[in-house]
Amino acid sequence: MSAQEKAEETNRDIVTVTIADRIATITLDDPATRNSLSRNMMARLQKILDEIKTSKEVHVVIIEGKGPVFCSGHNLKEIAAEDREAAMLALFEQCSTLMQSVVHLPQPVIAKVDGVATAAGAQLVASCDLAFATESSKFATPGVNFGLFCSTPMVAISRNVSPKHAMEMLLSGEFIDAAQAARTGLINAAVSAEELTERVMHFATRIAGKSPLTVRIGKTAFYQQLPMSLADAYAFTSRVMTENMQTHDAREGIDAFMAKRDPEWQGK
Amino acid sequence: MSAQEKAEETNRDIVTVTIADRIATITLDDPATRNSLSRNMMARLQKILDEIKTSKEVHVVIIEGKGPVFCSGHNLKEIAAEDREAAMLALFEQCSTLMQSVVHLPQPVIAKVDGVATAAGAQLVASCDLAFATESSKFATPGVNFGLFCSTPMVAISRNVSPKHAMEMLLSGEFIDAAQAARTGLINAAVSAEELTERVMHFATRIAGKSPLTVRIGKTAFYQQLPMSLADAYAFTSRVMTENMQTHDAREGIDAFMAKRDPEWQGK
Amino acid sequence: MSAQEKAEETNRDIVTVTIADRIATITLDDPATRNSLSRNMMARLQKILDEIKTSKEVHVVIIEGKGPVFCSGHNLKEIAAEDREAAMLALFEQCSTLMQSVVHLPQPVIAKVDGVATAAGAQLVASCDLAFATESSKFATPGVNFGLFCSTPMVAISRNVSPKHAMEMLLSGEFIDAAQAARTGLINAAVSAEELTERVMHFATRIAGKSPLTVRIGKTAFYQQLPMSLADAYAFTSRVMTENMQTHDAREGIDAFMAKRDPEWQGK
Repeated sequence: MSAQEKAEETNRDIVTVTIADRIATITLDDPATRNSLSRNMMARLQKILDEIKTSKEVHVVIIEGKGPVFCSGHNLKEIAAEDREAAMLALFEQCSTLMQSVVHLPQPVIAKVDGVATAAGAQLVASCDLAFATESSKFATPGVNFGLFCSTPMVAISRNVSPKHAMEMLLSGEFIDAAQAARTGLINAAVSAEELTERVMHFATRIAGKSPLTVRIGKTAFYQQLPMSLADAYAFTSRVMTENMQTHDAREGIDAFMAKRDPEWQGK
Repeated sequence: MSAQEKAEETNRDIVTVTIADRIATITLDDPATRNSLSRNMMARLQKILDEIKTSKEVHVVIIEGKGPVFCSGHNLKEIAAEDREAAMLALFEQCSTLMQSVVHLPQPVIAKVDGVATAAGAQLVASCDLAFATESSKFATPGVNFGLFCSTPMVAISRNVSPKHAMEMLLSGEFIDAAQAARTGLINAAVSAEELTERVMHFATRIAGKSPLTVRIGKTAFYQQLPMSLADAYAFTSRVMTENMQTHDAREGIDAFMAKRDPEWQGK
Repeated sequence: MSAQEKAEETNRDIVTVTIADRIATITLDDPATRNSLSRNMMARLQKILDEIKTSKEVHVVIIEGKGPVFCSGHNLKEIAAEDREAAMLALFEQCSTLMQSVVHLPQPVIAKVDGVATAAGAQLVASCDLAFATESSKFATPGVNFGLFCSTPMVAISRNVSPKHAMEMLLSGEFIDAAQAARTGLINAAVSAEELTERVMHFATRIAGKSPLTVRIGKTAFYQQLPMSLADAYAFTSRVMTENMQTHDAREGIDAFMAKRDPEWQGK
């Protein structure tokens, strides 16, 4: 085993991936660091997402955390130990790239939260396409408490909730509960601990049963059109729908729908 | 009767317009196709909006649907039958132009929904300035179910609700009920079947009683400033308010308000 | 006393400022005009904000109104009396500058509302970083009622709430209650009259206890990144966090957090 392989083996332990029925479940499994986004954790997640990106096998992704903390954000020890400015910038850029990889992943990503999500952990939830959490889960951007404002997390959070609600989290550093997170649009819904897996699997299974090509076209176009002017967004998505209609799956899907039979997706 | 007149006569049947007390009520009346936005339906609606656009008689517009379906979006049979790519693009562009005509209509448009609104039907609701629905009404963007992602509907929907809520509809293809639509900002309120007409007429009558010029200035400026930077939006709307103050109706309105008498609008 | 000093003395009476425990409380105190934003009131507020902007003593600002009206917006008598177009534009620009001064003030600003906030008064609430109101408080943009659409207020309001909710206020000119304002994101929360001061002071005290430099970095970056594309926002905030980490307060804050001791902020 080479040094690199050894290092990868070590990394592998802190994140696991299982694939079943076209659903990839990524489990953050480093409870000792409260599932912190250490350089290793981020590198591992980046590699996993880069692999899933081109996988035909995976139609939808679930991200969950082992232990009472879903994800605590950056590893503070690592940040405290870093005194080179360029390396610090590289660290924040690594995290920003990771978060954008979630947004730009062709497959939908669902955050399954049962516990605490703070700082870049809350950002990870906000970056997913869908997010569900147990009622006891809590969310915070506590950087302001220790002098380091959650400036990158706020990018994802402020694109999901009203400025007032984002500022309440960012300026106070306090936790909001899952019910408030659901009310403000940070997550889709807060459910009981018993319901969480069922609810997440309901959406994951539904999405996994769609044409992966159609989902890919739609998710990609969604984030592209979001910042456009209304006129540009309509010009763009009119072309997207036209191209979508040139695919086998749209023709098949509409035929099947009109014939009241199940479609057979070919992903092309 | 010429062939064109005959065609228009046929078209006329699927949409009716009544004007009373400065309120135009547009009724989608093609329950056989679930009030689908066929080429004919869209052409008819476009013509109606183009006429209303320059009408001094109409101060506010209500759009409603006859039957259990408010509007089911594009006519799938028509889409399935179309195999020319350029014609397909023209179809989506026709719909996109129609939706933007609702947004850019100088008069406010209120969606009055009692039933199902799907795909471009949900987009039509999202494109209106105000929307009210009965509690039993339902909304969905089901394109993903038959391989054709609702990419143009998402333009309107994602400009009204949080990305998480938009993605929940778009990726699952499932219905949300009127209460959830109200919570997320897709519609203004969900009301009982008894209350729907009353609620819609309350707003329609109020708006019809305002200066149509003032309303036109305000609605137009609203959508223009929305995508601007804060500084640009303030520079723009400061000019808009100044121009608004040069009108008879603003001078009259403020005089009347201070004198505690009813204003007499002249629409200039 | 010079004429200018006399004028300032007169102005001083309509707004008071008290500073205690790093919290500046600005009180609109002109109940006779319903705390209207007359030229004098705006000039006075602008001067206060300009002074606070460079103050090391003030870490957070509260804006409140004396009497049953928090703020009624522009002074209609002043507007009615102004028939020079250039002076009218200057009036709206003065107000727009004031509102942007709230947004761009380095220190967070909390609206403490117990009463009615209308037109530019509702805009002032929307322009603050946080806003809390008693349950009996009410909000409206009534300009449409007297022929002058609330076009500048809508800039702030439409950046906080869904277009549907903004349009409901703007087109109807009707009041919404504090509960609805909280649901839509116009304010953070509606609380009982007994709780209002406690709630506002909870947030003010918390924020006053943070590193003022960190808060300043974060608040400033928040509004800068908001209109950016996702990629630009991440590139920008990655640099912001890196610079934040070069400050004493971030190093101290993280050290203190890891050592479980209280940080000693130096504001540098």
